[in-house]
Amino acid sequence: LLHRDIFPVMKNAEVFQDCISLLTEHVEHLTTPVDAIVGLDARGFIFGPLMAQRLNIPFIPVRKAGKLPGETIKYSYQLEYGSDTFEIQKSAVHCRQRVVIVDDLLATGGTMKAAAMLLKSLGAEVVECMVVIELTSLKGRDKVPAPLYSMIQYHDI
Amino acid sequence: LLHRDIFPVMKNAEVFQDCISLLTEHVEHLTTPVDAIVGLDARGFIFGPLMAQRLNIPFIPVRKAGKLPGETIKYSYQLEYGSDTFEIQKSAVHCRQRVVIVDDLLATGGTMKAAAMLLKSLGAEVVECMVVIELTSLKGRDKVPAPLYSMIQYHDI
Repeated sequence: LLHRDIFPVMKNAEVFQDCISLLTEHVEHLTTPVDAIVGLDARGFIFGPLMAQRLNIPFIPVRKAGKLPGETIKYSYQLEYGSDTFEIQKSAVHCRQRVVIVDDLLATGGTMKAAAMLLKSLGAEVVECMVVIELTSLKGRDKVPAPLYSMIQYHDI
Repeated sequence: LLHRDIFPVMKNAEVFQDCISLLTEHVEHLTTPVDAIVGLDARGFIFGPLMAQRLNIPFIPVRKAGKLPGETIKYSYQLEYGSDTFEIQKSAVHCRQRVVIVDDLLATGGTMKAAAMLLKSLGAEVVECMVVIELTSLKGRDKVPAPLYSMIQYHDI
């Protein structure tokens, strides 16, 4: 099994800056203006806040269950073995808020789907789901209930 | 029990920008030049990459065990109930590299101590450990084997 590792990108400050620039420019060129960037625990936290600051809009975290205070809602999803649960603070999102959800990698699409469902259940409009790397052979894209943009596609795994 | 919640900071893009500016300026004013920013899984990932990009230096992640590919080293630490393990890629750090470790909150100091020990065992020089919020009554500062800087101190919990 090949392991696609995102972290070397961050070891080179210039490459990392360019990566964030590309992601941010893509959001700026969307026809729908975006109100907030949502990032998924934990590697989405590396890209989401940087994009949000460049775009001067809020950053909203989606976390694994049990890590957020206040009133939250949850969504469970299947993993290869077992399941996991995502959670978001109810106060984090306004109804009709237009959001982009960001994560590092799309594999089978289970986590991205869960995040999009969570945001939609709070009344947000998911303008797009974005990932740095898409493993196309796993067809995760078909599961995501929103437009999906990937910066890099790998066709083997 | 009061829960100090860091996430509202990110809902306001301006406040979040100011927070990153303050943290970054603090690093710029250290007498030792800093080669890389280390962030702790998962909330340290929200601050670390932003600081690293402003300072134009690499970002190095410390993760919970089992989430990093390649050759790694591990360090286990006690939690209130049970224990947890931090892990870092051996190739992530050079010997004598001068790093600042960043996390959102210092409570009992167990996680920050573990991260500092991990970096030191790879030969890095931990110039400083930084947190946004310090809960001073828990005396976590005493456990951290490096200078500790906190932006905000709460004296109750």
